[in-house]
Amino acid sequence: MYYVFILGTAGSGKTTMTKNLQDYLLDQEMDTAIINLDPAVEHLPYTPDFDVRDYVDAYEVMDNYQLGPNSALIASIDLILTRASEIKSDIDQIEANYVLIDTPGQIELFAYRETGRLISKLIRGNNKALGLFLFDSFLAKEARSFVSLLLLSSSIKFRLELPIINVLNKVDLLTDKELEQILGWGESAENLIDELGKVDEYSLELINLLIESLSSNLIPVSSEKGSGFDELYAEIQRVLAGGEDYLTEEPNPKL
Amino acid sequence: MYYVFILGTAGSGKTTMTKNLQDYLLDQEMDTAIINLDPAVEHLPYTPDFDVRDYVDAYEVMDNYQLGPNSALIASIDLILTRASEIKSDIDQIEANYVLIDTPGQIELFAYRETGRLISKLIRGNNKALGLFLFDSFLAKEARSFVSLLLLSSSIKFRLELPIINVLNKVDLLTDKELEQILGWGESAENLIDELGKVDEYSLELINLLIESLSSNLIPVSSEKGSGFDELYAEIQRVLAGGEDYLTEEPNPKL
Repeated sequence: MYYVFILGTAGSGKTTMTKNLQDYLLDQEMDTAIINLDPAVEHLPYTPDFDVRDYVDAYEVMDNYQLGPNSALIASIDLILTRASEIKSDIDQIEANYVLIDTPGQIELFAYRETGRLISKLIRGNNKALGLFLFDSFLAKEARSFVSLLLLSSSIKFRLELPIINVLNKVDLLTDKELEQILGWGESAENLIDELGKVDEYSLELINLLIESLSSNLIPVSSEKGSGFDELYAEIQRVLAGGEDYLTEEPNPKL
Repeated sequence: MYYVFILGTAGSGKTTMTKNLQDYLLDQEMDTAIINLDPAVEHLPYTPDFDVRDYVDAYEVMDNYQLGPNSALIASIDLILTRASEIKSDIDQIEANYVLIDTPGQIELFAYRETGRLISKLIRGNNKALGLFLFDSFLAKEARSFVSLLLLSSSIKFRLELPIINVLNKVDLLTDKELEQILGWGESAENLIDELGKVDEYSLELINLLIESLSSNLIPVSSEKGSGFDELYAEIQRVLAGGEDYLTEEPNPKL
C-alpha cells in the first residue's frame, strides 16, 4: 500500500484534489481509499473510508468545552492523539493500492503540532509514503510568494519526513501567460531572480538552491478541468519507486 | 515610529511576548503601543491601543454567518480588509516610539492569505518595521523540526517583506543541556547535521545556507522569566538601524 498525504495552505484545494485524484486512480484500475483527517471540515465531496470526525468533531469540541473557534481547532487536532489506538485499528482495516490522506484545512495545525506528525507516522507505518504540496495558484503568481511557498514546502518536508511533490494547483484560474511565467520560475532561478528585482546575497543563494532541488518537480494541475493528472501520477510512481531520496532511514513510528 | 510584528506558529507564545516586550520597552522609557490583529483571541493580558475585534470578531462571524470554526477564522481574517480604511484611520492616531503588533493565533492565516500581507503593509506604511519570529522551544529541540522552523521563518520573511529576528522563546521549558544544544545548532551547521544523521545533498546545502544566514540572529528569551530581553532589544535596534538588508526597496502599500 502507498500513502499519499495531500498538503497545502488553507484554500489551496486539498479536498477537491483528494476527490479528483481518487477518481483518476480508480480510472487506472487502482484500488484507492481516502482518509479524512480534518476534524473541522464541513462538507466532503467524497465518501471517506475513514473519517476522523467519527472520533473528534471540531463543532462538538467547541460546544462541549465552550471554546472559541481557534482554541477548538487546536484542541480537536490534539484530541485525535487520545484516540490514536482506535484510529490505528480502524485504519488497518483499509485495503487499497493507494490511500489518500486529506489533511486539516490549515496545514499549520497538522505540520507544526506534535499530533499531526505522530498521526501521519502512525497511519503510514513502514509503508512507502509521500506528500503532495499544493501551491495555491493565486499566491504562486507573485514571485516573492512563489519563493515563500517553495520554502514552506521544504519546511513541511523536513517536519513530516516525507518526500514531497510540488503541485501547482488550480491552474485554470491562471492566464496562459501567468502559467508560463510560473513554470519558467520553476525551471530557472535566473527567471525568478529577474522578476524579484533587488535581492540580498543570502536570498540569491537560497533561491538558486531551491530551484535546483525542484528538478522536474512542479506539476501544473487543474482539479477542476481534470488536467495534469497523467503527469502527476507518473511523478508519484517515480517518487515511490525511490527516485527521490528519503530524508531518513525507515520511518520509526513512535506509537 | 518603529513597527514590530510578533510572529510564530500557534502556541509559540506571541501574545505573552507582546505583553512582556511592551513592559520591557516601557522600562527603557520608550513609548510603546500595541495593536491586536487577532480577531479570534479570547483573552489578552494587555490593553491594546487598537483591537481588531472592535471591527471583526470571530465569534460574531461564526454566529452571524452560521460558519464552522475553520471557515469562521478564515472569513474573519478576510473581513478585516473590508474595514481597512477605518482601521487605518484608527491606527494613524497611535503615537509611540514602538508599535507592537500581535498577529493572529495561526500564522498561516496571516502570512499566506492576501489580507494579512496587505494589512501589515497598511499598518507600517513607509515606517521601519521588522518581525520577531518565535521558535516554539518544544518544537525546536528536535533537530529536524528546528530546520523546519528555520525554513518557515525564511518563508515568512519573503512573504511579508520584513527583516526577521529569530527568537527561541520559552527557554524556561528547556533543560540547560537542551538549550545549549539548540544554540549550538544555530552556531554551526555541522552540529546540526551531526544530529540529523543521514541527510541528502540538497538538504545539506540548504542547512549550511540557513545557518550561515543566521549570523547572531537566534536569541533565547523567556517571557515567563523576563530573561533575554536586553539582547533582543539590542538586536531590534541593530536591525532597525539598517544592519539587516531589506529584501526590497521601500515598501509600497497598495491600499
